[in-house]
Amino acid sequence: MSDLPKSVEFHEEGPREGFQIESKVYPAAERAALIDALSQSRLPQIQVGSFVNPRAVPGMADTPAVFEALTRAPGIAYTALWLNEKGFRRAADMPGITLNGTLMFYTTDRFSLRNNNCTAAEMRDRQRRMLAVYDEYGVPLVAANIITAFGCSYEGEVPLSRVTGIVDHIVDLCRETGRKLPVIYLADTVGRANPEEVRRRIGAVRDRVPEAEIGVHLHDTRGLGGANLYAALQMGVRYIDSSIAGLGGCPFARHGNAQGAGNICTEDMVFMCEEMGIATGIDLDALIEAAQLAERIIGRRLTGKIMHYGRPARLEDRA
Amino acid sequence: MSDLPKSVEFHEEGPREGFQIESKVYPAAERAALIDALSQSRLPQIQVGSFVNPRAVPGMADTPAVFEALTRAPGIAYTALWLNEKGFRRAADMPGITLNGTLMFYTTDRFSLRNNNCTAAEMRDRQRRMLAVYDEYGVPLVAANIITAFGCSYEGEVPLSRVTGIVDHIVDLCRETGRKLPVIYLADTVGRANPEEVRRRIGAVRDRVPEAEIGVHLHDTRGLGGANLYAALQMGVRYIDSSIAGLGGCPFARHGNAQGAGNICTEDMVFMCEEMGIATGIDLDALIEAAQLAERIIGRRLTGKIMHYGRPARLEDRA
Repeated sequence: MSDLPKSVEFHEEGPREGFQIESKVYPAAERAALIDALSQSRLPQIQVGSFVNPRAVPGMADTPAVFEALTRAPGIAYTALWLNEKGFRRAADMPGITLNGTLMFYTTDRFSLRNNNCTAAEMRDRQRRMLAVYDEYGVPLVAANIITAFGCSYEGEVPLSRVTGIVDHIVDLCRETGRKLPVIYLADTVGRANPEEVRRRIGAVRDRVPEAEIGVHLHDTRGLGGANLYAALQMGVRYIDSSIAGLGGCPFARHGNAQGAGNICTEDMVFMCEEMGIATGIDLDALIEAAQLAERIIGRRLTGKIMHYGRPARLEDRA
Repeated sequence: MSDLPKSVEFHEEGPREGFQIESKVYPAAERAALIDALSQSRLPQIQVGSFVNPRAVPGMADTPAVFEALTRAPGIAYTALWLNEKGFRRAADMPGITLNGTLMFYTTDRFSLRNNNCTAAEMRDRQRRMLAVYDEYGVPLVAANIITAFGCSYEGEVPLSRVTGIVDHIVDLCRETGRKLPVIYLADTVGRANPEEVRRRIGAVRDRVPEAEIGVHLHDTRGLGGANLYAALQMGVRYIDSSIAGLGGCPFARHGNAQGAGNICTEDMVFMCEEMGIATGIDLDALIEAAQLAERIIGRRLTGKIMHYGRPARLEDRA
């Protein structure tokens, strides 16, 4: 009836997503302490910060200091976000960074203009240049992100054909340059997906490119994040972006409220997977402790649930 | 691949669930104002309060005053909760109440003892007496609730056989007394269900009694509430208990945190259904206004999402 994977890989985005939207800039030492706590949980990948325009995202300007301050644990990839060549070259200088070659595509011009100051078509062209830069550094192409894959906060609904059009382009680009297909991520950047649409769009991508590995980047803007992830898991998705304690949000996603809504919450979603018998390789208790640290750092109640209510009682807890 | 219903019926529990757990007793006039706001949304059923032990749940002691103060709208059932004959007889005196005959069953003794001061087996026996009382008042049997159907905060895991055993008992009871089967509600009272288990347990009940209508009462204690509802919808569930703004929680559900976790959030879940093409008959904008009023009454940020971030931009909003 469904096609749940046996195991999944969570990629933690909280240290970037969570702090980029705050009006206050949090000290690098505090963000490094959170990353160290996350490392204790054996999350396979943690995004440390971003190399983007410091005027647009001042909270990430000192990402190099976080890379300096954190304690690396074996088996964990410490990654960063960049949106262009300049950002990538800065990231490449970081000590101990894992450089995951990533391509970025937009389904709408208005979102692309806000995020990258170029149209979606221009952004598509720039990705060829990024591939050449990755080659220069010997960096493998690991991920292709389709941003606003389920709709845009400026342009509203996005036809499925724009998503499959980008997928076709990614396939062509890889064929042309003799590369293996990267994981294709469908991003619900502004939180307007619903579970049926998640199934439909992932299904369409799978039909188009049966050999593609698919990932999801979901926001819980309207309370459907968990249901959307369950729908994605039913379609066999194995790669999941999430944020500890539900931290974060895109600073350019227009909402009724100035404060953006966060990604799906790592520890709640790890709990969901583990309860369904999907292996994550993560120590949930350590993850919950990291979520509680995130709340102390941010200084207000965060939206994660299990961090506040605890794991369910087990048989051995019976009095 | 799934069996989504064409339409669903939401039963609003916030005015009871939301205020019973608060240490403060909220004035009847404020609770009535919230109910009036909910009525504007055309919710088909609103639970006004409960008739239970006022020492155990002081916040509900003045439920009669709420019934006096609220403004009835046509087509909406204003209901109440009771756990025994005495409570039902008090409820029956309320002006304009819709008396939905309801049976209550527990899967574990310890939860039953905390909620009802009797064992699960004793509670089962008492339900025969309730049927006789309903007959006395000419009240139809509308619902049978299986409380702690997915696990218990005191006894941990609950075997599926206890749930199907109760279902068999309900079927026998209805056959014996010549009644139509009520809607059978599986309640995740303490928030420990996961979507696969929701599918499994609803599937088991459906296999046992193919003619049964099934409902769910879900809590979002660990962030899986929306995913659990989506799973239930995939199994064809048409009756949904929920709370405006995610208000509420069971006062006897043991959590890491003193403040119980709420039901699934009405407006977020109505949004999910409508986005998937499942009709609810509800005015979502009016519902969001009611959620915002609930937050003003409670006086702290509530956990609902769409009430804070707004509905997604539509094509007609394009600038």
